[in-house]
Amino acid sequence: MAKSKLPKQSEDFPGWYVEVVKQAGMAEHGPAKGSMIIKPHGYAVWEHTQRALDDRFKATGHENFYFPLLIPMHLLEKEADHIEGFAPEVAVVTHGGGQKLEEPLAIRPTSETVIWNTYSKWIQSYRDLPLLYNQWCNIVRWEMRTRLFLRTSEFLWQEGHTAHATEREAIDETLQMLDVYREVTEDVLAVPVLKGRKTANERFPGAVETYTLEGLMRDRKALQCGTSHFLGQNFAKAYDVTFLNRDGKQEYAWATSWGYTTRMVGGTIMTHGDDNGLRLPPAVAPVQVAIVPIYKTDEERSAVMEVATRMRDELVGRHNLRVKLDDRDQYRPGFKFSEWELKGVPLRIEVGPRDLANDQVVVAERVYGNKKQLSTGEAISSMVEMLNDIQRALYEEATAFLDDNMHQISTFDEFAEGVETEGGFWVGAWCGESDCEIEITERTKATIRFVPIEQEDPGAPCMHCGKPGAERATWAKAY
Amino acid sequence: MAKSKLPKQSEDFPGWYVEVVKQAGMAEHGPAKGSMIIKPHGYAVWEHTQRALDDRFKATGHENFYFPLLIPMHLLEKEADHIEGFAPEVAVVTHGGGQKLEEPLAIRPTSETVIWNTYSKWIQSYRDLPLLYNQWCNIVRWEMRTRLFLRTSEFLWQEGHTAHATEREAIDETLQMLDVYREVTEDVLAVPVLKGRKTANERFPGAVETYTLEGLMRDRKALQCGTSHFLGQNFAKAYDVTFLNRDGKQEYAWATSWGYTTRMVGGTIMTHGDDNGLRLPPAVAPVQVAIVPIYKTDEERSAVMEVATRMRDELVGRHNLRVKLDDRDQYRPGFKFSEWELKGVPLRIEVGPRDLANDQVVVAERVYGNKKQLSTGEAISSMVEMLNDIQRALYEEATAFLDDNMHQISTFDEFAEGVETEGGFWVGAWCGESDCEIEITERTKATIRFVPIEQEDPGAPCMHCGKPGAERATWAKAY
Repeated sequence: MAKSKLPKQSEDFPGWYVEVVKQAGMAEHGPAKGSMIIKPHGYAVWEHTQRALDDRFKATGHENFYFPLLIPMHLLEKEADHIEGFAPEVAVVTHGGGQKLEEPLAIRPTSETVIWNTYSKWIQSYRDLPLLYNQWCNIVRWEMRTRLFLRTSEFLWQEGHTAHATEREAIDETLQMLDVYREVTEDVLAVPVLKGRKTANERFPGAVETYTLEGLMRDRKALQCGTSHFLGQNFAKAYDVTFLNRDGKQEYAWATSWGYTTRMVGGTIMTHGDDNGLRLPPAVAPVQVAIVPIYKTDEERSAVMEVATRMRDELVGRHNLRVKLDDRDQYRPGFKFSEWELKGVPLRIEVGPRDLANDQVVVAERVYGNKKQLSTGEAISSMVEMLNDIQRALYEEATAFLDDNMHQISTFDEFAEGVETEGGFWVGAWCGESDCEIEITERTKATIRFVPIEQEDPGAPCMHCGKPGAERATWAKAY
Repeated sequence: MAKSKLPKQSEDFPGWYVEVVKQAGMAEHGPAKGSMIIKPHGYAVWEHTQRALDDRFKATGHENFYFPLLIPMHLLEKEADHIEGFAPEVAVVTHGGGQKLEEPLAIRPTSETVIWNTYSKWIQSYRDLPLLYNQWCNIVRWEMRTRLFLRTSEFLWQEGHTAHATEREAIDETLQMLDVYREVTEDVLAVPVLKGRKTANERFPGAVETYTLEGLMRDRKALQCGTSHFLGQNFAKAYDVTFLNRDGKQEYAWATSWGYTTRMVGGTIMTHGDDNGLRLPPAVAPVQVAIVPIYKTDEERSAVMEVATRMRDELVGRHNLRVKLDDRDQYRPGFKFSEWELKGVPLRIEVGPRDLANDQVVVAERVYGNKKQLSTGEAISSMVEMLNDIQRALYEEATAFLDDNMHQISTFDEFAEGVETEGGFWVGAWCGESDCEIEITERTKATIRFVPIEQEDPGAPCMHCGKPGAERATWAKAY
């Protein structure tokens, strides 16, 4: 455990992020360029996120399957927009088993191609539809400007791939899964998000529409937190997936895909962390309660450990909490306090001989930064409620921060200056034209994070070119 | 759903396996040579297996992490035996992001190399030990003779990688994890296994000892069901992982690794399946109870579906079972019966109007092949117990089969003839010399599946060369 001080968020947010990820044991760089080792404290956050997502996928009728990592090049290239978008990011296997391969294989940058190639065999009639499937896997997209969790050449995710008999059903599915993502992001990761639709420039390659969730990090930069794509019939046409519809006619199937990735471990860190380290939402915290025994003599140690052990066993056994009893003799209590603080553990119980004389322990809350004395019984019985409070408090704090950083654009210059100096989301009328969008991005480094899910008249001319407004666009600088 | 008849196991076991895997919707071949698509019915078996393993890993103090897919070639090559063993199976990435890479990257065939390279940074003192970590991931080992689940160029597994301060502790860990595998294989997959140690020829490349579980498939061929390796200090030496021990001296760390793979979905199929299809153990069956409504008229349909729906809801809500109400109108009940039979669903409830008049349903048990009439209330209340019975019955049947196919070797000729005609396990004295082992394998196609975990005098000369016996070896033809 490195013990150097974290940079202050207000002075060096990128430096703070790098250090907190490293010092809290979340992740580190792997030996190959752009690769990441997800350490146990970081991986556990992902596991809890996975479980929350997977339970909801199953509750909405989805099943998991698994498609191969390696995709023959000719298959990857069948959907024109798709390959144009992904070609620059593909890693290629050219040799296997000591021999040069006849056809190179791409490591999946996403799996629409290999899955829709197979759906052509699985779908004959409307009775075979819908197909509601998902897979958990790793993805490689070649990436040199690495940032742990946020941008790495390999990442973990789930990718849902559904096929439907009607356009309406596919759009409904796309929006349903966006809402599942919103629920997990807000209720589990405590990260408040805005929902919207991407512009053509920002769409997933091969999609008709891409819907997105956008959160705001503590440096006031936006983070895309999950996307859900309505693919129309594009992949069905590229891979010839037709079915006999209810009217006895051959029709192309309608597709969706949706993905949620390990980048959200980074998003959780950047939404909640403070100058002292992580502040993890209890729902995903690998350790929800750390118990630190305080003692000098062997006699004190044995008295304190007896109580600490009993509390641990009750919190685990009766309340089903994730508890760590920190019984390491080589470290002093103060060292342990700051380590658990750094690691973002929501609650810490300090068990010392003086307090024990009165059947008391000290409970320290990471989020509020307070300490209170409670009887051992009270401490145990109130722990679940305290964790629920903390989960809610983190969400409310982040929501207030998001609200405080929403700006209505009155003039382009004000926006350009504001998004540069203050960051945050900026909402204003836009003409809907890609060229204008690109010009604005070139001038401000901000991108359109989303427009409303249903197009609506912004009631004002484009803030940049002055042409009639077509969309109410929300801009931000983003990760 | 293909409806062609399965080959009989007794006439064409490989053909039976291929067809049942395909027709039951377990898996199919992917587009790249050697690759596999794990379909939802097969993947769900793996998910339940994963959960059973992961719970036990955590209960024994292990945490999950994730290391990168791609390993720089020079790292892979540091442990001499290891690279010699894996070099012929490695898939190589030579291009990424449109450019030729400076150094080719191997797709992990297993992760000892990249993990021990990093452990050198994580381990300084005996206080940092043990490291008890595991990862769930995909693996690529180039493989042309593909057999779904059993032998594919990509497979899914978990790989545990632990580091210890003493040899004894590492050996204990190796054997503990072998026992975790045994518990899951026997109690969850209902596949009885024999435990043992591999000979030097069959050892994991880079291991000091490899311990194995071996099951017997219904064609009387053995299947390796999970291995646990004591790696000694080999990887610590190759990657320079030293620590300050309790005596203040630098010492190399002691290592274990252990893996369990999707091949066990195949092992479960081949241990329990019969001429009518799969017979899945309830603990891993994706569907534990299939409810088939029987009706001719709309009026019958609505009466039958009301009861079927109520039963489904009670079995799911109150008894926490995995239940499928098969309400597809386009298929007749007989079709559905054989489909659920093929898919190995342990229990089927038939709800028809005649039985319902007496508040009765028919319950069909896949394993026993019987049908019984029960009241709806009885059917619901006895379902959990019936599933437990079936789980036990499958294990007992497979255990009796294994016992029936254990042979003591009296002469080499009897063994050579027996292992060819009858299959099964053959136990006899062996001199312990690799050359003799290889000769026997060349003559019989059988391999030593294992020798006892602790070496013991077989009390007889080698059955082949007549030299003094060193080990009691168990031979079989194997997958």
